[in-house]
Amino acid sequence: MKALYLSDDGLQLLPDYAQPQPGPAEALIRVLCAGICSTDLEIVRGYGAHRGVLGHEFVGLVESAADTDWIGRRVVGGINLGCQRCSICTQAGPEHCPQRRVLGILDKDGAFAEYITLPLTNLMPVPANVPDEMAVFTEPLAAALRITEQLTLAPGEAAAVVGPGRLGMLIAQTLALTGAAVTLLGRRTASLELPAAMGMTTALVDNVPDNSFDVVVEATGNDQGLVNALRLVRPLGTLVLKSTFAGSVTINLTKLVVDEITVIGSRCGPFAPALRLLAQRQIAVEPLIDGRYPLADALAAMAHAAQPGVRKILLRP
Amino acid sequence: MKALYLSDDGLQLLPDYAQPQPGPAEALIRVLCAGICSTDLEIVRGYGAHRGVLGHEFVGLVESAADTDWIGRRVVGGINLGCQRCSICTQAGPEHCPQRRVLGILDKDGAFAEYITLPLTNLMPVPANVPDEMAVFTEPLAAALRITEQLTLAPGEAAAVVGPGRLGMLIAQTLALTGAAVTLLGRRTASLELPAAMGMTTALVDNVPDNSFDVVVEATGNDQGLVNALRLVRPLGTLVLKSTFAGSVTINLTKLVVDEITVIGSRCGPFAPALRLLAQRQIAVEPLIDGRYPLADALAAMAHAAQPGVRKILLRP
Repeated sequence: MKALYLSDDGLQLLPDYAQPQPGPAEALIRVLCAGICSTDLEIVRGYGAHRGVLGHEFVGLVESAADTDWIGRRVVGGINLGCQRCSICTQAGPEHCPQRRVLGILDKDGAFAEYITLPLTNLMPVPANVPDEMAVFTEPLAAALRITEQLTLAPGEAAAVVGPGRLGMLIAQTLALTGAAVTLLGRRTASLELPAAMGMTTALVDNVPDNSFDVVVEATGNDQGLVNALRLVRPLGTLVLKSTFAGSVTINLTKLVVDEITVIGSRCGPFAPALRLLAQRQIAVEPLIDGRYPLADALAAMAHAAQPGVRKILLRP
Repeated sequence: MKALYLSDDGLQLLPDYAQPQPGPAEALIRVLCAGICSTDLEIVRGYGAHRGVLGHEFVGLVESAADTDWIGRRVVGGINLGCQRCSICTQAGPEHCPQRRVLGILDKDGAFAEYITLPLTNLMPVPANVPDEMAVFTEPLAAALRITEQLTLAPGEAAAVVGPGRLGMLIAQTLALTGAAVTLLGRRTASLELPAAMGMTTALVDNVPDNSFDVVVEATGNDQGLVNALRLVRPLGTLVLKSTFAGSVTINLTKLVVDEITVIGSRCGPFAPALRLLAQRQIAVEPLIDGRYPLADALAAMAHAAQPGVRKILLRP
C-alpha cells in the first residue's frame, strides 16, 4: 500500500509499504480521509523519535475485525495505545501509559496510508450525518475539548486563544460555546480575516494590553506565542499550553510566580463530545480546509501544510 | 534610626535614616526581630526594582496607632499594601492589586530598620506563647501554607520539595501535616543532614527516578531546580513554583504539554493559620536559625545569609 514514511533519511512516499495485520483485538481500517496536524510537521522537523508512517487524524472504514459487528462501520479512533495492564491504563485510560504507543507519533504506524490497525477499544462509530471531511476533525476537536475537561471556563470570563491556526480556530469555537467572551489573537491581519469573517472576535496580539484575560490558550507552539500568552493572562489567571513545543524555550518566570498564574499542559481529549458537536453542527470545520490531496501527493500536501497561514490540509488515499 | 538601605549605589547601613511617620489608618511598629529571606538576596542581585529599606519578615511592637487598642501589642503583618479601592483589593485582598506596594520589596520601606509603618488592616496580634524568634517565621510559613490554599494535596499522595533551604524546610513541614508522603530533596548530602535529623524523609535529587511524585514544589529558585522538579512530577501531576526566579530560564516544555502537568505559581499566604500552627508547635522553626545579628551588623548578616547551605539569619535592632 502507499504510505508516507519517516525514516532517518527523511520523509518518503513509499509505494508498496506492507499492509498492517490486525491483532486479535484490533480492526483493520481503510483510511477514507486523513488530516495534517502541526504535530506532523514538528515530527518531521525533529520533535520526538517517531520512525514509521505519520498521521493521527483520520476517518476510516472497518474492513476486518474479530468482532464482526464492527465490519463496515465508519469510525474515528483514539490515538493512544496503552499496555492495558498498568494502573494508569486500567484507572484513567491509555493517554498517559508509560508504555504507550501513539498512532503516527510514537512507535505505531499512522494514517497517512491506505490502511491502519487500531484496538477496537479505541474506535468510535461516526454518525451518518457527519461526512468524512467533518469527521476527520474529530481528533483535533477532541484535543480542543480537553481544555474544558481540565478547567472550568465560567460563562462570565474572558478567554483568549493565541494563534489563529488550524487548532486555535477549533479551540476558539469550543471555548465560545461556554458563553465566555473569547478573542482569537494573531500576529498578522491576514491570519485574522477568516475567523473574523466567521464571526469570531479577533485582535492583533500586539495591540492587546497586559493582563487582559482570565484564561489564555497558547496555540502557536513558538516562543513568541508563549511570551505573549503569559503577558496577556491576568494575575491568578490560567494559561493553557496546547501546542507541542519542539526544543527548549527561554522565558521569564517572575510573572508566573508573582502573579500566581496556573499553567496547564493539555494534550488529547474526548472523542464522544467532539462527534456530538460535529453532528449538531456547533463547530464550523469546512472553512478550515485549505487543500485536498491524494495520498500519492502526500509530500506536496505536507509542504503546503507547512506554509504560513495554511490551516487544514486533507489527504485521501 | 538605623536601616539597611538599597540604592543604585548598592546596599548600605544608614545610621540616621528618617523614622517613618504612620498615616491615619496605620501603625508605627518598633521592629523586635526580622528575618532574611532569599527574596532579599535576589533583590540585592537585581530582582525587581525596589529602592529603599529591605526586609519583609518581622515581628514588632505597635508604638502608636489612631486605634489605641493596638498600642503595645506584639504583631506580625501582611506585606502587601493595596490601593483598597480596586475590585481586586475589595474582592480578593491586596496581594494582586496592580497598584500595590510591598513591604521591603516594592516601593515601601521594609523591616531591616528600627521602625516600620503598616496599615492596621495588615496587622495580626501574636499569641503570647509564640516568642519573637518563632513569630518572625510567620510570613514565610504563611507563604508555605499558600500551597495548600491553592491545591488539594490528598493524604495518600506523594509530594517532594526540591531545595532543603530556609523556605523548603517550612514547606516540607506544612505539606507533611496533610498526611501526604513528603520527601525533601537536595543536591548535597550536607544540606540534608539537618532535615534528616529532624525526622524528615530526604533524598539526593539526582538519585530519584523520573515521575516519582504527584506534587513537586520547586523551592530553589534556580534553573537546575526547575529542571529537576519538572523531571520528577508524574504525568497529570502538579508542579508548584514557590521561589522567585531572577532573570529568564530555559526549559523544555515538551513534558509539560505531553504529560499534561499543571504548574502553579505561588507567593504570599495566610497569616492566621501560620500563627495557629506556630502556637501549636506543629512547625519546628528554631533549628532553621543559623545566625543572629544586631541591625548594626546587617551587611555581615546579609553576607552570611548568602552563603550556600545557610538557612535563617535573624536581625535584632
